[in-house]
Amino acid sequence: MTSPNVAINLAQKLATFDAHWQPRVVGQFNNHDLLVVKVKGEFVWHKHDDTDDFFLVLKGRITIRLRDGDVTLGPGELFVVPRGVEHCPVAEEEAHLLLIEATGTPNTGDVATAQPRREI
Amino acid sequence: MTSPNVAINLAQKLATFDAHWQPRVVGQFNNHDLLVVKVKGEFVWHKHDDTDDFFLVLKGRITIRLRDGDVTLGPGELFVVPRGVEHCPVAEEEAHLLLIEATGTPNTGDVATAQPRREI
Repeated sequence: MTSPNVAINLAQKLATFDAHWQPRVVGQFNNHDLLVVKVKGEFVWHKHDDTDDFFLVLKGRITIRLRDGDVTLGPGELFVVPRGVEHCPVAEEEAHLLLIEATGTPNTGDVATAQPRREI
Repeated sequence: MTSPNVAINLAQKLATFDAHWQPRVVGQFNNHDLLVVKVKGEFVWHKHDDTDDFFLVLKGRITIRLRDGDVTLGPGELFVVPRGVEHCPVAEEEAHLLLIEATGTPNTGDVATAQPRREI
């Protein structure tokens, strides 16, 4: 983790790994994890019953599929999937995101299939 | 506020106002407000006893003065001021930020001097 009084440079953090759909924790905020992730292709349909899901695109473009319509995001655009709402993120080309999740949230909505919590 | 299934474009939101140090609410996330703000010059020393303070620079550069050292942030860099920690944001030139605050947080740490809550 970063020392307390150092800026968190998101591009530098993203440059430290290549894997897709494996979020890395870069900081904490009010019992939430701040995460960066590289995505490409289609994730799985899932929902989080106890937490909203924050997506901010830093690079590239993603579509968040929702049962009642899709939302497409480019750089500098964010979207919050409300708790309990099924969604499926998709990226045709690699995209880089800032995510915010309540600490302990499984990224697939299910501890059995979720990525482990990784800090960088 | 935006309709549920629409991307929140931060640059477009920022283009709708000019005033400095007057955050605008652009969305909600887990009982927090997502805000954009334009800053220039020096704010006031303050702290929030009950919430961390999230800063992400979208454009320009800011320095967050802390009693034990300054942190300077450029575009794509974030910093979280822990709850209870005194800080004073400063920007020599205009900078644009994404802030996240627990809903109801006075921006100066004091309801008497805080900006009203504005949504766009």
